[in-house]
Amino acid sequence: MDIEKPINTKALFLGPKSENYDFFRQMLLFLMDDHAEWRRYFHPNDAPIVSDGEKGQKDFLDTLQKTREALVDLAGQLQESSTPWFSPRYLGHMNTDTLMAANLGYMLTVLYNPNNCAYEGSPATTALEIQVGRQLATLMGYDPQRCWGHITSGGTVANYEAVWLARNLASIPFAIRACKPELVDGLSDWQLANRSTAQILDLMDRAKESGVFEEMREQTVRGKGMAGANLGAIIVPQSKHYSWTKAADIFGIGQDNLYSVPVRENYRMDINALKARIDSLITGKKPILAVVAVVGTTEEGAVDEVHEIVKLRERYAEEGVAFYLHIDAAYGGYARALFLDEENRFIPFEGFHTICIDSKDTGNDWLNRDVYEAFKAMPKADSITVDPHKLGYVPYAAGAFLAADRRMIDVISYFAAYVFDKSDDNPMLLGSYIIEGSKAGAAAAAVWMAHRVVPLNRSGYGAIIRASIEGAYRFYTSLQNATPIEVGGKRFEVLPLTCPDSNIVDYAFHEIGNPSLKEMNALNQYLYERCSYKSGPLYTNDFITSKTSLTVEEYGEAPLSFIKRFGFDPSEWERHGSVVVLRSCVLTPYLVNNTTYKTYWNTFLKAMEDAIADRQRSQ
Amino acid sequence: MDIEKPINTKALFLGPKSENYDFFRQMLLFLMDDHAEWRRYFHPNDAPIVSDGEKGQKDFLDTLQKTREALVDLAGQLQESSTPWFSPRYLGHMNTDTLMAANLGYMLTVLYNPNNCAYEGSPATTALEIQVGRQLATLMGYDPQRCWGHITSGGTVANYEAVWLARNLASIPFAIRACKPELVDGLSDWQLANRSTAQILDLMDRAKESGVFEEMREQTVRGKGMAGANLGAIIVPQSKHYSWTKAADIFGIGQDNLYSVPVRENYRMDINALKARIDSLITGKKPILAVVAVVGTTEEGAVDEVHEIVKLRERYAEEGVAFYLHIDAAYGGYARALFLDEENRFIPFEGFHTICIDSKDTGNDWLNRDVYEAFKAMPKADSITVDPHKLGYVPYAAGAFLAADRRMIDVISYFAAYVFDKSDDNPMLLGSYIIEGSKAGAAAAAVWMAHRVVPLNRSGYGAIIRASIEGAYRFYTSLQNATPIEVGGKRFEVLPLTCPDSNIVDYAFHEIGNPSLKEMNALNQYLYERCSYKSGPLYTNDFITSKTSLTVEEYGEAPLSFIKRFGFDPSEWERHGSVVVLRSCVLTPYLVNNTTYKTYWNTFLKAMEDAIADRQRSQ
Repeated sequence: MDIEKPINTKALFLGPKSENYDFFRQMLLFLMDDHAEWRRYFHPNDAPIVSDGEKGQKDFLDTLQKTREALVDLAGQLQESSTPWFSPRYLGHMNTDTLMAANLGYMLTVLYNPNNCAYEGSPATTALEIQVGRQLATLMGYDPQRCWGHITSGGTVANYEAVWLARNLASIPFAIRACKPELVDGLSDWQLANRSTAQILDLMDRAKESGVFEEMREQTVRGKGMAGANLGAIIVPQSKHYSWTKAADIFGIGQDNLYSVPVRENYRMDINALKARIDSLITGKKPILAVVAVVGTTEEGAVDEVHEIVKLRERYAEEGVAFYLHIDAAYGGYARALFLDEENRFIPFEGFHTICIDSKDTGNDWLNRDVYEAFKAMPKADSITVDPHKLGYVPYAAGAFLAADRRMIDVISYFAAYVFDKSDDNPMLLGSYIIEGSKAGAAAAAVWMAHRVVPLNRSGYGAIIRASIEGAYRFYTSLQNATPIEVGGKRFEVLPLTCPDSNIVDYAFHEIGNPSLKEMNALNQYLYERCSYKSGPLYTNDFITSKTSLTVEEYGEAPLSFIKRFGFDPSEWERHGSVVVLRSCVLTPYLVNNTTYKTYWNTFLKAMEDAIADRQRSQ
Repeated sequence: MDIEKPINTKALFLGPKSENYDFFRQMLLFLMDDHAEWRRYFHPNDAPIVSDGEKGQKDFLDTLQKTREALVDLAGQLQESSTPWFSPRYLGHMNTDTLMAANLGYMLTVLYNPNNCAYEGSPATTALEIQVGRQLATLMGYDPQRCWGHITSGGTVANYEAVWLARNLASIPFAIRACKPELVDGLSDWQLANRSTAQILDLMDRAKESGVFEEMREQTVRGKGMAGANLGAIIVPQSKHYSWTKAADIFGIGQDNLYSVPVRENYRMDINALKARIDSLITGKKPILAVVAVVGTTEEGAVDEVHEIVKLRERYAEEGVAFYLHIDAAYGGYARALFLDEENRFIPFEGFHTICIDSKDTGNDWLNRDVYEAFKAMPKADSITVDPHKLGYVPYAAGAFLAADRRMIDVISYFAAYVFDKSDDNPMLLGSYIIEGSKAGAAAAAVWMAHRVVPLNRSGYGAIIRASIEGAYRFYTSLQNATPIEVGGKRFEVLPLTCPDSNIVDYAFHEIGNPSLKEMNALNQYLYERCSYKSGPLYTNDFITSKTSLTVEEYGEAPLSFIKRFGFDPSEWERHGSVVVLRSCVLTPYLVNNTTYKTYWNTFLKAMEDAIADRQRSQ
């Protein structure tokens, strides 16, 4: 195997000061010229449609001018209102600069305008999408010969696909009982509702062999609808993305069947609470349709203990209780590259930090054993969501849905089922195996370009994400050790919410001695408004961040320990039930250099000090 | 009001021979430079991240080289396998050149990478999406102050949104009975299931006033799921897109509740059959959840008689039967611009052809009264799907969902409901009112650019689509009048399937005297394979088309008259139940010029003759 040459992260992005402008411009001209020639040399003898004489006509020139004016108008609007995420002054949402390779790939492919819904409209980019799906499934530890993967518009749609599959799969044993009862002879309702995914797919194979596959599908919820079905509960952590509540609505499952499990102080799902929830459902004879683990919560970057959930599932299997396991790794999925060597082997924990992370900067409490084991256990899940447009550093919109066993898609496919006889087959009608229909081939091409330049292991994405995590850790450490800011005779401390599992750092400012949580919330809300689009065009901001509110409704008692660290009386939490924190997703890979980091840390402190001073003046 | 200056269609596209290359290239450089400067002048004193010294390092140069090689690789793959839809030699799927304005807008916006899921990630492009939604709703005849519209990834997702809304709306009267029975006092189950959309929305307003809105939503299928619900049937024409079967699955409705209505010989939904279906459902006391009309079927370009369906709905309303009406105008929607003058008035039918269509070329059987009335009646529907990436001439992926009454979205919204107090409000979290989550702001910007340059009336889109329809009509007329082709002593005739309602022309070749439908199907399948990706890279093809199979399962007896016109015995249809036709979506606006048209018509005939000769040799 080739050992990849190390990549230089700074050569991957256009850069905060357009440092790689010459290169990007040269590539842009290449792609334009290349495309223009492709058109010209298609049947070179065909006459041009537009003559040079016509090009000089007034209405022709006026029309060109309309396009020019529109572009200038759009450029002005974008410049005035866009988010300057390219700068290390932006530590807000899950945004930073995107890979030049991905941007160029996207821009080039827009000119060819493929639609990956059907192969006929996208012979080039459907093949790229299938390649990319397999690459990502391999990154997750799935067997590339058995897996299924494709690009979605984002994590929301990928999560929907998981629910769609889990729901339709769960109805298969009952459908088989209706049309070929001998295949499930002697199984009770409870047993039918507790087949594992592998058992269901084997049953489906037997239905195919018996020639009742179509008849069986008509008996699933696909054919009959959800009206008569009782497929059970979906269990998600409280830290879930709101796409899960939308999914429960869309798929006819209902919010009543969506159960939230509390998170602990570290914002990971409480495994004991999960167990208690499962036990109580079993007692009530309610099947468990699916359990969802989150790898990289959107608000805290927390990583659920997938390995513990997998162990739990194995234990329940012995008791005859089975459920579909999905991992929502929309945010954290690409970070699995940190743990893979150049031959795609999962790196042993011993020595992992010295190999992969500059341990003198991050220490061993970062990417600790739990996080390591959680990433290692990911391939045990039935399916995984991962978003290239997050830690894949590609432009919107590109999510991905990945499944361990490609037989699953027959559960949702329309028209003839996808024949997976050759591993490199391209589906003729991708749109019949997925939720979406028309989809930009350019998105798949952008992801393909990114993976072509940045390997999905520790020397590629691992290196970029490592840099971002190191930057996040520096920021976290600085926040922990910061001396209070003095403004107008008052002193303001800052505390990070928790030691995060990835590169998202939440924190809050507090006036020392202030006993009111409401006042602290008002202060941080003010800081957020000063450092976000709320204060007008962002281009004039010194620092830009995002915020989140941790409420008792969504987080239970998890935020209480944070409140206490500020010296608040616990009754303040009972009274307000919400704490506003500033949220910095540190995706930028540029905060690893000491000088750069210190400059931006001082920029941050100064921006906060100025904002606090302004607030005092306005009060 | 300004009367728009006429646009020159040829100045809108890059062109089959890259005729507008100089202009496009100039604009590309403008957008690149403009963006690069935007980055540089954000805090101009911040030091660059990359030093000139670093730029000379080997690993830096190697990394740039990796990006360059990847781009060359991608460009090669695209050139080898892409579809040359820019040429009039391509008359296949719904593709042709896309507007330079839209492509440039897309490419520029990729550099700013906005995500329209949340306003905070896209202050510029969320505003553009809301503008574009309102423009399209206005094009459909909706009241811009009451409507709701947004961009989706395509028609499939827009159709899903219609089902989601219709389904959740239908459960509201029952939900109100559960939590505030006095609002629906005295109404039977049947009456609750037969409230009109307006009545349901008024009920919802009263639930809000009574303070039981959230409680009510918990009682809808959103909260309770579909398990206990019996919401009735969705009625679609047989010519429906397969997204409707997917929708019935996804939303827990089931294929059993999806009813297909036969189409007539002109491939429009048979209104009498629709009436009979509704009557039989009423007799069976099964509510009608929704009726779907198609404006521009994907296979034939047929336009359902929306005005007749609207009349039918009004008549049923008098009998106490109500249903949601959705129009799937994914394909045909933009053609409504043909009928709108520069002040957005629907043009009177009298004189319409002389104003809008060059009637000496197309005659009055094109865009006839039925088509005119169907387009006129569109605003009577509750919601409409329309795809900018089809007749909007913008790149993938951009569909749109449009609704008459924006109150509807409270039925599906998550988090706090969208406050529509000002008509120019931008939603803070678009992702909570739509199916998708993350979505490219670039898609909205591309559509905005297109609409900025090409007005949504007869002098803008009307002019482009008119040109495409005139080209289609010429092609249709040529097919009708074509003298048989002689090859190897045998004579081959060609017949168009039907006089189409828009710009899609289906047709089949037939060896005169051949009595076997199976043989005719084999001939046309061969022609398709010769003229499509199936014969290898398309770049060497002389003519490229698509095909469709009209089967008895999907089309009933509708294709029989076509079969008979070839002289086949009707028993041939009974025996095979399927006819293969070639399908040309004539989106190109370039076939209006006589010389150009004749050249390409001869190209087409020659390509067919060569293909038939090859087939003879191989037999």
